[in-house]
Amino acid sequence: MIEITSVQNNLIKEIVKLHQKKYREEFIIVEGKKALLGAVESGLKTKYVFGTDKSLLLEYEDDKSILVNEKVMEKISTTDSAPAILGVLQKPEYNIEDFRDYKKIILLDSIKDAGNLGTIIRTAAAFDIDGIILFGDCTDEFSPKAIRSAAGNIFKVPIVHASIRELKELKKTHKMVSTVVNSKNSIKDFITEEPVITMFGSEANGLCKELLSLSDISYTVPMKEGVESLNLAISAGIVLYEMYKS
Amino acid sequence: MIEITSVQNNLIKEIVKLHQKKYREEFIIVEGKKALLGAVESGLKTKYVFGTDKSLLLEYEDDKSILVNEKVMEKISTTDSAPAILGVLQKPEYNIEDFRDYKKIILLDSIKDAGNLGTIIRTAAAFDIDGIILFGDCTDEFSPKAIRSAAGNIFKVPIVHASIRELKELKKTHKMVSTVVNSKNSIKDFITEEPVITMFGSEANGLCKELLSLSDISYTVPMKEGVESLNLAISAGIVLYEMYKS
Repeated sequence: MIEITSVQNNLIKEIVKLHQKKYREEFIIVEGKKALLGAVESGLKTKYVFGTDKSLLLEYEDDKSILVNEKVMEKISTTDSAPAILGVLQKPEYNIEDFRDYKKIILLDSIKDAGNLGTIIRTAAAFDIDGIILFGDCTDEFSPKAIRSAAGNIFKVPIVHASIRELKELKKTHKMVSTVVNSKNSIKDFITEEPVITMFGSEANGLCKELLSLSDISYTVPMKEGVESLNLAISAGIVLYEMYKS
Repeated sequence: MIEITSVQNNLIKEIVKLHQKKYREEFIIVEGKKALLGAVESGLKTKYVFGTDKSLLLEYEDDKSILVNEKVMEKISTTDSAPAILGVLQKPEYNIEDFRDYKKIILLDSIKDAGNLGTIIRTAAAFDIDGIILFGDCTDEFSPKAIRSAAGNIFKVPIVHASIRELKELKKTHKMVSTVVNSKNSIKDFITEEPVITMFGSEANGLCKELLSLSDISYTVPMKEGVESLNLAISAGIVLYEMYKS
């Protein structure tokens, strides 16, 4: 176990770079005991584990464990209150080819809010979704905030980015369902005909035209009239729940 | 319409105090066009409206409208990117006595996260809940962050704080339902026998013993085994959806 006490240390500077998406080519930051445990359990390879307390590092390999002081931890952490433990892990790589065999897939179009994305990933794991497709200009699924919001579940469901061409290919095997605000079909009548891809648009713009043109059927979450629509993560949660129980 | 250009202005200093709960005895801050419109539509009285652009202020009474520069707006706003319009409104007052006549009530026990609270309030409005009871040590429902997360809906559902004595009184007229992680009853079998109070515990601790002892029946949201539980706002969203459609 090595020890680092200076925020000027070169390794520390390298880790801080991972706060920015452009440097997260190979490695990502996972903050906090629970999220780190979830990532390791999901099979992600550990590069380094930083801890402010020796006892927390005991369960990790000695040559990957680094003891740091609070100041260094604050430097490498992205949260206001720094965690006691923080891991740097190999970024998982998933393959769109594998998605052909998945029965329940969800697609998120141009989702911008990392908290919403992480929450939807957490919910997808709870409701046994096989894979998540990100389409368009989405926030990074491996940002520290998205990982935090997924509460240790982010690595339990494969996530890929797909082009419209790749989606057209998947449409040959999968039924494509769109969730919209104004369909005559209520989500309470949702019957999963698997394999299925259920698509969600962004809060601001809904699903884009390209995706709507691929949709076989649309559903709406029924709600009171004249009220501001549901938060995206909430309506996705309700749809995933219906997909799970049907 | 008056104009304020200095962050040292005494009124500006008074408004900034409203960032802290202890000063929100009579007035609260509502940030952004949508939320402000929602508050005014819900009948809240306007004390001041601050805007960085004259045209935004035209629809508000002239003697309450205050034109400010971006610097002043940043000072009175609580967000990283200051809104173009910000209102100071009379805090709404609700009465627990009125709750006796409400058919669908939800109760939140010691909820700490303002984002979760605001999201649940927004969802409650969408699913036609008549009233919300806060119990125990909850985050302030009138914090700027909770109001933001409720997206203009925070004033559409009456919210009160209640003691265990007041809840025992309500139990005489209302069925009390607890949502827990380990009930044998699935929420998909939820049948609303109104009037009803559906209770939600905090993410960290669930419902406290005092409230569980008042519960007539408990329900669980079914999910995959071995997965970290759902985010509180998501599971509340699913329960509220079941309450709405049943």
